[in-house]
Amino acid sequence: MHIHIENDASAPSALHLSPDVLQQHLDRHPELRNRFTLSENSNPAHTATFLGDCDLLWSGRKLALDSFHTPRLRWVQIMSAGVEQWLAHWPPGITLTNASGVHGAKGAEFILMAALMFNFGIPGFLQDQAQRLWRPTFGGCARGKNVLLLGVGGIGAAAASLLTAQGYCVTGVTRSGRCDADVARCIRIAETDDVLPQVDVLVSTLPLTPQTEGLFDRRRLDLLPARAGVVIVGRAAVFDYAALREKLCAGELAGAVLDVYPQEPLPVDDALWSTPGVVMTPHCSLDDHSAYLTGCLAVFIDNLVRDSRGYPLRNQVDVARGY
Amino acid sequence: MHIHIENDASAPSALHLSPDVLQQHLDRHPELRNRFTLSENSNPAHTATFLGDCDLLWSGRKLALDSFHTPRLRWVQIMSAGVEQWLAHWPPGITLTNASGVHGAKGAEFILMAALMFNFGIPGFLQDQAQRLWRPTFGGCARGKNVLLLGVGGIGAAAASLLTAQGYCVTGVTRSGRCDADVARCIRIAETDDVLPQVDVLVSTLPLTPQTEGLFDRRRLDLLPARAGVVIVGRAAVFDYAALREKLCAGELAGAVLDVYPQEPLPVDDALWSTPGVVMTPHCSLDDHSAYLTGCLAVFIDNLVRDSRGYPLRNQVDVARGY
Repeated sequence: MHIHIENDASAPSALHLSPDVLQQHLDRHPELRNRFTLSENSNPAHTATFLGDCDLLWSGRKLALDSFHTPRLRWVQIMSAGVEQWLAHWPPGITLTNASGVHGAKGAEFILMAALMFNFGIPGFLQDQAQRLWRPTFGGCARGKNVLLLGVGGIGAAAASLLTAQGYCVTGVTRSGRCDADVARCIRIAETDDVLPQVDVLVSTLPLTPQTEGLFDRRRLDLLPARAGVVIVGRAAVFDYAALREKLCAGELAGAVLDVYPQEPLPVDDALWSTPGVVMTPHCSLDDHSAYLTGCLAVFIDNLVRDSRGYPLRNQVDVARGY
Repeated sequence: MHIHIENDASAPSALHLSPDVLQQHLDRHPELRNRFTLSENSNPAHTATFLGDCDLLWSGRKLALDSFHTPRLRWVQIMSAGVEQWLAHWPPGITLTNASGVHGAKGAEFILMAALMFNFGIPGFLQDQAQRLWRPTFGGCARGKNVLLLGVGGIGAAAASLLTAQGYCVTGVTRSGRCDADVARCIRIAETDDVLPQVDVLVSTLPLTPQTEGLFDRRRLDLLPARAGVVIVGRAAVFDYAALREKLCAGELAGAVLDVYPQEPLPVDDALWSTPGVVMTPHCSLDDHSAYLTGCLAVFIDNLVRDSRGYPLRNQVDVARGY
């Protein structure tokens, strides 16, 4: 069986998987040893040739897979959690597994940080600091405040654990209204409207799917109280950023800690850069390059073992559902 | 026995203790019921009269106690944790108990937030945002990073618990080199020099005493690595703020999250307002006005019970030691 590794030449070398490293990991498992041939490529001009010959594909680069001839390909392991760009060009009959879970540890810490920043009024104090204004406020503890957590997948579940341990009252939001994560309760998306007026911190880890696109439009944002802060680490297109910006400018939200944007890199003339209450990180706060490749590889090796035993794969994307 | 309450007319009403509220709390304890007469004052012109007649004093206002005639006064309960201004005017033979511990819950959350902010490079990203620069960095998790925690009293011990639970490796620093808090190890102040080069986050909760004043001078700050962030929530005079500012301007520190300043309110022409990497809160991040009076009152009532039983008091300040 042949595994092809497609690396992204423009990515940092810490994100390149070498055939040697993959072989070392395969050799640690008796079931995987001597079962695979390996190839590697990072030159887009040669990708088609390699894809024509492989059974399994590890890809660190986004590919419009339906534009290639892939007669033997049956399974693709990708290095991202978000899959909407893959699914736009997905040939039928091929299995897709993603990197869900790899962002959990760092993403959860980032979400906890952002929630605490709202509790301590940091977005407002940064504006005061810029104007050299000394205006203390003596609010309460974060403990007991309400977090609405949109999406309880790998990142959301990890965040739920940290937030709950910190004393936040976490309400999870999932498609089914059910989850196994450490939340006080879990509701369906249709039920969020009733909860939004009590929210202190709104956190979105939602993927982009036909169901989530534009979900947080102006009407839903208007249901949030002015004390609420918004944290977006999932896909940006779930939110109406123009409406979010207008509400921040009008003082109708306490602030926004954002890692993702409608266009990335954010254009230099975008008004978001200087919107009051916005704290921006440039789409890097969930990715730990020192651990990322290892995390993805752990998913892949585990799945190769499962595949060899005929067990269901981890992180298998439901192509129809979109995540 | 007479308890006099001295309130600060300029403080928010949430910080005023009324005789009625104190009486209600006393009435809940059989040992305290019907034992005390109470008085209250917030007019400085009348303070001397009240101090001349009381056995116990609850004070929400700083007083130069040695300038008053206090023939019967044997014990003062104050509403702050810092005592250096009281001790500068302290008559011999009077017991002082402070509000240590009341700031723990909120202070610990603030310190955790600040530590996480350094891990996610927020001080640097705020500068990038101001310049509309998109420069992602993909660092690791906070878990496993080193925190040096100067002072392990009420705030420090609460912070140690949260930081340790979050996976930080916390080294406490105390006068004795010992503490009961949840730290990986505890060292004496004299041993900090050896540890400073490995520090990711330096947190100071130190009180101002003859031993701590100016402790973090330029020489000690120079021992920190450039990746280190500094969090100061104890007394400002422990640090050389001019040296701290110069190091931040030179990029020799990752940032500083500051709640206290050499002069408060910070003068509008102070260069600190616009120092790169500085995130400022105006001396309010440890005080929760919704819970503060209740917390101080709990200490006082507990101490009144202890006093009636002849037990040692909680939060008794060692006047010679300075905290």
